[in-house]
Amino acid sequence: MSSTRERLVIIGGDAAGMSAASQARRLKGPDELEIVAFERGGFTSYSACGIPYWVGGSVGDRDDLVARTPEEHRERAIDLRMRTEARRIDVEGRRVLARDLESGEEYWTAYDKLVVATGARPLRPPLPGVDAPGVHGVQTLGDGQALIDTLTRTEGRRAVVIGAGYIGVEMAEALIQRGYDVTVVNRGKEPMSTLDPDMGRLVHAAMTGMGIEMVNDAEVTKILTGEDGRVAAVATADAEYPADVVILGVGVRPETELARAAGLPLGEHGGLLTDLAMRVRGHEDIWAGGDCVEVLDLMSGRERHIALGTHANKHGQVIGSNVGGGYATFPGVVGTAVSKVCDLEIARTGLREKDALAAGLRFVAVTIESTSRAGYYPGAALMTVKMLAERRTGRLLGVQIVGREGAGKRVDVAAVALTAGMTVEQMTALDLGYAPPFSPVWDPILVAARKAVAAVRADTA
Amino acid sequence: MSSTRERLVIIGGDAAGMSAASQARRLKGPDELEIVAFERGGFTSYSACGIPYWVGGSVGDRDDLVARTPEEHRERAIDLRMRTEARRIDVEGRRVLARDLESGEEYWTAYDKLVVATGARPLRPPLPGVDAPGVHGVQTLGDGQALIDTLTRTEGRRAVVIGAGYIGVEMAEALIQRGYDVTVVNRGKEPMSTLDPDMGRLVHAAMTGMGIEMVNDAEVTKILTGEDGRVAAVATADAEYPADVVILGVGVRPETELARAAGLPLGEHGGLLTDLAMRVRGHEDIWAGGDCVEVLDLMSGRERHIALGTHANKHGQVIGSNVGGGYATFPGVVGTAVSKVCDLEIARTGLREKDALAAGLRFVAVTIESTSRAGYYPGAALMTVKMLAERRTGRLLGVQIVGREGAGKRVDVAAVALTAGMTVEQMTALDLGYAPPFSPVWDPILVAARKAVAAVRADTA
Repeated sequence: MSSTRERLVIIGGDAAGMSAASQARRLKGPDELEIVAFERGGFTSYSACGIPYWVGGSVGDRDDLVARTPEEHRERAIDLRMRTEARRIDVEGRRVLARDLESGEEYWTAYDKLVVATGARPLRPPLPGVDAPGVHGVQTLGDGQALIDTLTRTEGRRAVVIGAGYIGVEMAEALIQRGYDVTVVNRGKEPMSTLDPDMGRLVHAAMTGMGIEMVNDAEVTKILTGEDGRVAAVATADAEYPADVVILGVGVRPETELARAAGLPLGEHGGLLTDLAMRVRGHEDIWAGGDCVEVLDLMSGRERHIALGTHANKHGQVIGSNVGGGYATFPGVVGTAVSKVCDLEIARTGLREKDALAAGLRFVAVTIESTSRAGYYPGAALMTVKMLAERRTGRLLGVQIVGREGAGKRVDVAAVALTAGMTVEQMTALDLGYAPPFSPVWDPILVAARKAVAAVRADTA
Repeated sequence: MSSTRERLVIIGGDAAGMSAASQARRLKGPDELEIVAFERGGFTSYSACGIPYWVGGSVGDRDDLVARTPEEHRERAIDLRMRTEARRIDVEGRRVLARDLESGEEYWTAYDKLVVATGARPLRPPLPGVDAPGVHGVQTLGDGQALIDTLTRTEGRRAVVIGAGYIGVEMAEALIQRGYDVTVVNRGKEPMSTLDPDMGRLVHAAMTGMGIEMVNDAEVTKILTGEDGRVAAVATADAEYPADVVILGVGVRPETELARAAGLPLGEHGGLLTDLAMRVRGHEDIWAGGDCVEVLDLMSGRERHIALGTHANKHGQVIGSNVGGGYATFPGVVGTAVSKVCDLEIARTGLREKDALAAGLRFVAVTIESTSRAGYYPGAALMTVKMLAERRTGRLLGVQIVGREGAGKRVDVAAVALTAGMTVEQMTALDLGYAPPFSPVWDPILVAARKAVAAVRADTA
């Protein structure tokens, strides 16, 4: 080993960690930079977002979800150690204690630079019965495999999904596709609390129309088991919902116990705090990215925790560039998300009403209905677009969309407009693609912007 | 009539003219503003862009293409005079000479404010045989009806489309759908000259794959007729292409003879020149919009002529606001267009290579292949994205996309980024919607932006 060769240690072998490794390797060869990565699980670089589609049968093979295997990483001179868990970070000593989960052996590895990419862990509510066979999370490929095994073995056809966020509604779709009777039990007044309730109500109606039983405003009190010890029902204060399988879809938290123990700075959502280059605040040689960090919300100026593969990949790219001697930043997010339940598309970006209020912003909100294509063109599908604009300035604050085919990705236009700080008046002049198979002559986003302009003008309060 | 009531005269009853009328009426009631509109044809407010889909059978009924009938306009107190042609504008005398095409009667109508919305007319190349029965343009609903009548009556199944721009390729689709053998004869080296030739080549290959005979680099010399006087073939210097029906899809020109005769200012493309409020330059009380005007291209700083319904509607909206005592502008276009041929989607925005060179801009150009959805998700379709960025600054200059489902409207992200003056580096951080059914974890636009960043950095010339 040459005396100038540095060692980069990466904790976590999924999107953020391995993107960082790959990008750093692109910039620096093995003579300059040694890269050691610890992954406690059995997979690398996989799409957790794809698990519902694998469970539902749209994706046939687990391996399809793996973007890059351990072998492929090793071919790029990355010393990837699978089934190896980081146990401690010694910041002073610049070293990481790792344990080989197969052999039980523990050893210290020194680093010059460290990347913490420990991901998130699903919230597992402390309910009686939550550990019973038949109750499943869907965070890792292992979780997905366990669920599929259960679904294959189980004769009953009743599924209860706890939680109606992205994971909850996507798992509802997956189970419908597998022929289950699905009940979604949800603490909120409407599903998809990432939307305003008036938009969540549209999701509720559409999911009910798909034959999904939607139970809102309901706190699960326990999970009941049968004589065989397996899950039998989900109980709320008011009712019991028979279940042959239960999915926990109540969200995730940053996996930052290791970071906390090492004294690294955590934010109010429990995620690591970094600067814009994804360097852990106050630590010159430690970076962090992916589901274990908090990101700057450009709309509110506050940190948020968002577990999303696309951010994790960007973080890894930025970290790898900086660690590799280049320069890149992750300026923050505007909060874009898109999802679907069967043929219903759900999208949002920017601030909801309550986010805007919490940020101290006053706004007007408008809602319009339009179609994905020219009204006369076959397949033109209704969509509802809600738009928030700041009072006085007319600056775009957020957009929510619920519709059918062609609805979801329209949110990207608003995401770019938010990033650029556009006003809704400026948006009305946007030169968006028009042809009858693609859009009405006024794109739904433009229709919403026009209505928002009128609301801003009419607002004299 | 009260002495303060003004009269607005509108020439042309399609998208721009009638949008202006409607918006002006919204702002001012009949007591304040009299609105008189002349339309020489038999339809108002219709979607010319929808004609190919009506011809192809995707749209069943001509009336579906009419957004608002004459009666609906009249119910809003708009004095709409159909089959009435404006013959002269007397700018000094502030009056318009109109002719009732049914009765032949001519009369002068005074105006306080005038809107010129005379549209465009299709180029009709001065070819021998161009007026033969069986040769059709597709500019107006009347043209569409005449074509459908011909297709219904004609036994032969061979169609030749002259021109391979938007109208040409959309008509090729329409005729394929009606079961015709289609030949597209095109002057350019590749179809879709609104794309760079390397991207046009992809369109060529895809259309050939659909069974369409593509003849590039070919100048039509004459249209041959049979003994019955009907069209029989299209001849180029090199070959003859038998044809039972011929479509002229060689583009349009602004319909501005009336404006020219009145001394109104025209640009180098023959369109009316306006200010940003759509007021004709140098004329306080005359506005113009729609296919008869030139628009500012925000990327090159030059005027262009773009006949597109979405612009016409925006112009009308702006004119109506200003005429009605409000304030609005049309800041210009970035040149977004989207189209399809069967399942092939084609989109562009901003500058092509030759546009950039003509504007004095130096650039890097990159091309990437990606998919519309996560690669493992069913229906993930390949798309090719070409991106141009300015040298040194890295400012986005243009994007072209050719792909299948989910490709076309992705151009909107680039359109907003162009409008905002973003660099490709800024674009790499865009928070675009991600979920496996909607996008790979790096959206194709982001993949292209990343490659463009690398090209800008590598460019040391």
